[in-house]
Amino acid sequence: MQGTPLVKPAGMTTRQARLQPRLIVHTGDGKGKSTAAFGLALRGWNQGWSIGVYQFVKSKSWRTGEKNAYEALDQVHRETGVGGPVEWHAMGAGWTWLRSTDTTDHAAMARAGWEKVCEQMAAQTHDLYILDEFSYVLANGWLDADEVLATLAERPGTQHVVMTGRRMPQTMIDAADVATEMTKLKHPFDKGEKGQAGIEW
Amino acid sequence: MQGTPLVKPAGMTTRQARLQPRLIVHTGDGKGKSTAAFGLALRGWNQGWSIGVYQFVKSKSWRTGEKNAYEALDQVHRETGVGGPVEWHAMGAGWTWLRSTDTTDHAAMARAGWEKVCEQMAAQTHDLYILDEFSYVLANGWLDADEVLATLAERPGTQHVVMTGRRMPQTMIDAADVATEMTKLKHPFDKGEKGQAGIEW
Repeated sequence: MQGTPLVKPAGMTTRQARLQPRLIVHTGDGKGKSTAAFGLALRGWNQGWSIGVYQFVKSKSWRTGEKNAYEALDQVHRETGVGGPVEWHAMGAGWTWLRSTDTTDHAAMARAGWEKVCEQMAAQTHDLYILDEFSYVLANGWLDADEVLATLAERPGTQHVVMTGRRMPQTMIDAADVATEMTKLKHPFDKGEKGQAGIEW
Repeated sequence: MQGTPLVKPAGMTTRQARLQPRLIVHTGDGKGKSTAAFGLALRGWNQGWSIGVYQFVKSKSWRTGEKNAYEALDQVHRETGVGGPVEWHAMGAGWTWLRSTDTTDHAAMARAGWEKVCEQMAAQTHDLYILDEFSYVLANGWLDADEVLATLAERPGTQHVVMTGRRMPQTMIDAADVATEMTKLKHPFDKGEKGQAGIEW
């Protein structure tokens, strides 16, 4: 159950207090980190937000369900004006705007993705950015957390960012406005069971 | 990063092993319990599943973003055949199929909601049921966890159930196939900050 506290920061109107850019972190070894990010984006979509999804792990098949659903929502927006636009960028597909890049150089690919995020943030392209599996980029040293934080700190306007992934660096958690740890209490893979279509992908 | 283990239960074909009904629990004091359930349902929608959402806490305004997005996805399904149908039942609205019920009697309302779930499960109406904030119903003693588990154990076919909410009874976690605890590491409400449209609702 979510509530809304009555206190607002001194010197801010209620409207201003409701337009603070958020950095949201989902980490931990449990399920639901990315899933909750894609659930959250439904609210943004409903607000008419422009949503940018960046998948920072190389794979063509992951998040097919979420991607197809958001493509449908993007189309609803384009056809009816309801909701907001959704742009989906996948490192696994070689980042569509980088047709000639060597997709086996993960560090270069990660950096290219981040540069695109920086470019879009500077232009205030989206209201919400989902940086999916971003912790891997940081954990692998492909990007420097302090550099990322400096860019985020300077982002103009009210651009929200959700980053997901296990072992998120503590500096990122410290900088976050909202940080949640998903902990596995129980999982059928532990018993050697198979993944279920519609549940795991 | 999710993987799929190679082991499958003895005596099952791969197809059978991929069609096991799941009971999924999202609990804990952190954000993302319901959000992850609504993110998960995007995958089901993409599989063409029929999705039934039951909001077990009385409120008209909560989950507006998710509800509107799923109404859009339901309409996409009805118009184009893509994805699956979505049915949304809210206790806060008095359960639409119960027009004359006293909505102030929460116990009776909760039981009426659960009876509708039982009826739909017996008829295999949906592939995925989201029982949102269901732990409150159990914690308040409006429904008995053992009775719920007995019904779930007998549900026919491959009907998946996700239940969310703080302080989920341990018996429910024990019975679950997947259980995740969402733990708050950090939240701006702790600092007295205001909720953000598109983020908190």
